[in-house]
Amino acid sequence: MIGKLTDEERALALADLPQWTPVSDPDGISRRFTFTDFVGAFGFMTRVAILSEKADHHPEWSNVYNRVDIVLTTHDAGGLSQRDIDLAKLIDGLAE
Amino acid sequence: MIGKLTDEERALALADLPQWTPVSDPDGISRRFTFTDFVGAFGFMTRVAILSEKADHHPEWSNVYNRVDIVLTTHDAGGLSQRDIDLAKLIDGLAE
Repeated sequence: MIGKLTDEERALALADLPQWTPVSDPDGISRRFTFTDFVGAFGFMTRVAILSEKADHHPEWSNVYNRVDIVLTTHDAGGLSQRDIDLAKLIDGLAE
Repeated sequence: MIGKLTDEERALALADLPQWTPVSDPDGISRRFTFTDFVGAFGFMTRVAILSEKADHHPEWSNVYNRVDIVLTTHDAGGLSQRDIDLAKLIDGLAE
Protein backbone atom coordinates (compact mmCIF):
# COMPACT_ATOMS: atom_id res chain seq x y z
CA MET A 1 0.00 0.00 0.00
CA ILE A 2 1.24 3.47 -0.91
CA GLY A 3 2.05 5.84 1.95
CA LYS A 4 1.26 9.47 2.60
CA LEU A 5 4.13 11.82 1.78
CA THR A 6 6.20 13.14 4.67
CA ASP A 7 6.24 16.92 5.17
CA GLU A 8 9.64 17.08 3.51
CA GLU A 9 8.65 14.96 0.50
CA ARG A 10 5.49 16.99 0.19
CA ALA A 11 7.29 20.34 0.16
CA LEU A 12 9.73 19.06 -2.44
CA ALA A 13 6.97 17.67 -4.68
CA LEU A 14 4.80 20.77 -4.47
CA ALA A 15 7.69 23.00 -5.52
CA ASP A 16 7.33 21.32 -8.94
CA LEU A 17 3.57 21.95 -9.03
CA PRO A 18 3.18 25.71 -8.61
CA GLN A 19 -0.35 25.74 -10.01
CA TRP A 20 -1.71 23.26 -7.47
CA THR A 21 -2.97 24.40 -4.08
CA PRO A 22 -2.87 22.24 -0.93
CA VAL A 23 -6.33 21.44 0.45
CA SER A 24 -7.15 19.88 3.79
CA ASP A 25 -10.50 18.13 3.38
CA PRO A 26 -9.59 15.71 1.92
CA ASP A 27 -5.85 16.15 2.43
CA GLY A 28 -4.58 16.66 -1.10
CA ILE A 29 -3.99 19.22 -3.83
CA SER A 30 -6.38 21.11 -6.04
CA ARG A 31 -6.31 23.00 -9.32
CA ARG A 32 -8.96 24.84 -11.35
CA PHE A 33 -8.93 24.76 -15.15
CA THR A 34 -10.97 27.13 -17.30
CA PHE A 35 -11.77 26.64 -20.97
CA THR A 36 -13.59 28.51 -23.71
CA ASP A 37 -16.75 26.45 -23.37
CA PHE A 38 -18.25 23.14 -22.25
CA VAL A 39 -16.78 21.18 -25.15
CA GLY A 40 -13.31 22.42 -24.22
CA ALA A 41 -13.83 21.49 -20.57
CA PHE A 42 -15.29 18.06 -21.22
CA GLY A 43 -12.71 17.27 -23.90
CA PHE A 44 -10.02 17.94 -21.29
CA MET A 45 -11.88 15.78 -18.74
CA THR A 46 -12.00 12.93 -21.24
CA ARG A 47 -8.24 13.05 -21.73
CA VAL A 48 -7.70 13.16 -17.95
CA ALA A 49 -10.16 10.27 -17.50
CA ILE A 50 -8.27 8.02 -19.89
CA LEU A 51 -4.88 8.74 -18.31
CA SER A 52 -6.34 8.33 -14.81
CA GLU A 53 -7.78 4.94 -15.62
CA LYS A 54 -4.48 3.89 -17.16
CA ALA A 55 -2.68 5.03 -13.99
CA ASP A 56 -5.35 3.35 -11.84
CA HIS A 57 -5.61 6.56 -9.85
CA HIS A 58 -8.62 8.82 -10.26
CA PRO A 59 -9.36 12.49 -9.52
CA GLU A 60 -12.21 13.86 -7.43
CA TRP A 61 -13.56 16.51 -9.72
CA SER A 62 -16.43 18.74 -10.66
CA ASN A 63 -17.47 20.62 -13.78
CA VAL A 64 -19.69 23.63 -14.30
CA TYR A 65 -19.87 24.63 -17.98
CA ASN A 66 -16.32 25.74 -18.94
CA ARG A 67 -14.73 25.14 -15.52
CA VAL A 68 -13.15 21.98 -14.13
CA ASP A 69 -12.07 21.72 -10.48
CA ILE A 70 -9.79 18.80 -9.66
CA VAL A 71 -8.77 17.49 -6.24
CA LEU A 72 -6.13 14.78 -5.98
CA THR A 73 -5.85 12.69 -2.84
CA THR A 74 -5.10 9.04 -2.06
CA HIS A 75 -7.74 7.42 0.12
CA ASP A 76 -5.62 4.32 0.74
CA ALA A 77 -2.83 6.54 2.08
CA GLY A 78 -5.12 8.88 4.05
CA GLY A 79 -3.79 11.91 2.21
CA LEU A 80 -1.39 13.17 -0.43
CA SER A 81 0.83 10.45 -1.93
CA GLN A 82 3.29 10.12 -4.78
CA ARG A 83 0.43 8.86 -6.97
CA ASP A 84 -1.23 12.27 -6.68
CA ILE A 85 1.99 14.04 -7.60
CA ASP A 86 2.44 11.80 -10.65
CA LEU A 87 -1.16 12.35 -11.76
CA ALA A 88 -0.89 16.13 -11.25
CA LYS A 89 2.14 16.17 -13.55
CA LEU A 90 0.26 14.18 -16.21
CA ILE A 91 -2.69 16.57 -15.95
CA ASP A 92 -0.43 19.63 -16.16
CA GLY A 93 1.04 18.09 -19.32
CA LEU A 94 -2.44 17.80 -20.86
CA ALA A 95 -3.38 21.34 -19.94
CA GLU A 96 -0.34 22.96 -21.55
CA MET B 1 -35.23 33.98 -21.87
CA ILE B 2 -36.60 30.94 -20.12
CA GLY B 3 -38.42 31.44 -16.81
CA LYS B 4 -38.30 29.67 -13.48
CA LEU B 5 -41.11 27.17 -12.97
CA THR B 6 -44.03 28.24 -10.80
CA ASP B 7 -44.69 26.15 -7.68
CA GLU B 8 -47.51 24.38 -9.47
CA GLU B 9 -45.49 23.61 -12.62
CA ARG B 10 -42.64 22.45 -10.42
CA ALA B 11 -44.78 20.03 -8.41
CA LEU B 12 -46.24 18.62 -11.60
CA ALA B 13 -42.84 18.18 -13.24
CA LEU B 14 -41.20 16.59 -10.20
CA ALA B 15 -43.97 14.00 -9.94
CA ASP B 16 -42.51 12.55 -13.17
CA LEU B 17 -38.97 12.55 -11.76
CA PRO B 18 -39.18 10.48 -8.56
CA GLN B 19 -35.43 9.84 -8.43
CA TRP B 20 -34.51 13.53 -8.39
CA THR B 21 -34.35 15.52 -5.15
CA PRO B 22 -35.02 19.25 -4.92
CA VAL B 23 -31.98 21.25 -3.76
CA SER B 24 -31.90 24.88 -2.69
CA ASP B 25 -28.37 26.13 -3.36
CA PRO B 26 -28.54 26.48 -6.30
CA ASP B 27 -32.29 26.11 -6.66
CA GLY B 28 -32.63 22.97 -8.74
CA ILE B 29 -32.79 19.19 -8.62
CA SER B 30 -30.16 16.60 -7.89
CA ARG B 31 -29.58 12.91 -8.47
CA ARG B 32 -26.75 10.52 -7.59
CA PHE B 33 -25.73 7.72 -9.96
CA THR B 34 -23.51 4.81 -8.92
CA PHE B 35 -21.70 2.48 -11.28
CA THR B 36 -19.44 -0.57 -11.04
CA ASP B 37 -16.27 1.41 -11.54
CA PHE B 38 -14.72 4.59 -12.95
CA VAL B 39 -15.10 3.50 -16.56
CA GLY B 40 -18.81 2.95 -16.01
CA ALA B 41 -19.18 6.37 -14.36
CA PHE B 42 -17.18 8.29 -16.95
CA GLY B 43 -18.83 6.46 -19.84
CA PHE B 44 -22.18 7.65 -18.50
CA MET B 45 -20.82 11.19 -18.09
CA THR B 46 -19.67 11.17 -21.69
CA ARG B 47 -23.15 10.27 -22.92
CA VAL B 48 -24.69 12.96 -20.71
CA ALA B 49 -22.10 15.48 -21.94
CA ILE B 50 -22.97 14.91 -25.59
CA LEU B 51 -26.72 15.19 -25.01
CA SER B 52 -26.23 18.27 -22.80
CA GLU B 53 -24.20 20.03 -25.44
CA LYS B 54 -26.80 19.14 -28.07
CA ALA B 55 -29.53 20.57 -25.78
CA ASP B 56 -27.34 23.60 -25.02
CA HIS B 57 -28.03 23.06 -21.33
CA HIS B 58 -25.34 21.65 -19.07
CA PRO B 59 -25.28 19.94 -15.69
CA GLU B 60 -23.30 20.97 -12.62
CA TRP B 61 -21.73 17.71 -11.65
CA SER B 62 -19.01 15.92 -9.77
CA ASN B 63 -17.43 12.51 -9.95
CA VAL B 64 -15.55 10.43 -7.42
CA TYR B 65 -14.51 7.04 -8.83
CA ASN B 66 -17.78 5.15 -9.52
CA ARG B 67 -20.14 7.89 -8.34
CA VAL B 68 -21.62 10.81 -10.31
CA ASP B 69 -23.61 13.57 -8.60
CA ILE B 70 -25.65 15.80 -10.89
CA VAL B 71 -27.37 19.10 -10.10
CA LEU B 72 -29.62 20.71 -12.69
CA THR B 73 -30.45 24.38 -12.43
CA THR B 74 -30.92 27.24 -14.91
CA HIS B 75 -28.79 30.26 -14.10
CA ASP B 76 -30.60 32.47 -16.63
CA ALA B 77 -33.88 31.69 -14.90
CA GLY B 78 -32.52 31.95 -11.35
CA GLY B 79 -33.68 28.44 -10.54
CA LEU B 80 -35.41 25.34 -11.83
CA SER B 81 -36.80 25.68 -15.36
CA GLN B 82 -38.35 23.43 -17.99
CA ARG B 83 -34.88 22.98 -19.50
CA ASP B 84 -33.79 21.19 -16.31
CA ILE B 85 -36.84 18.97 -16.39
CA ASP B 86 -36.16 18.06 -20.04
CA LEU B 87 -32.50 17.32 -19.34
CA ALA B 88 -33.37 15.23 -16.25
CA LYS B 89 -35.64 13.08 -18.42
CA LEU B 90 -32.89 12.62 -21.02
CA ILE B 91 -30.45 11.64 -18.27
CA ASP B 92 -32.93 9.20 -16.72
CA GLY B 93 -33.29 7.63 -20.17
CA LEU B 94 -29.51 7.12 -20.38
CA ALA B 95 -29.31 5.63 -16.90
CA GLU B 96 -31.98 2.99 -17.46
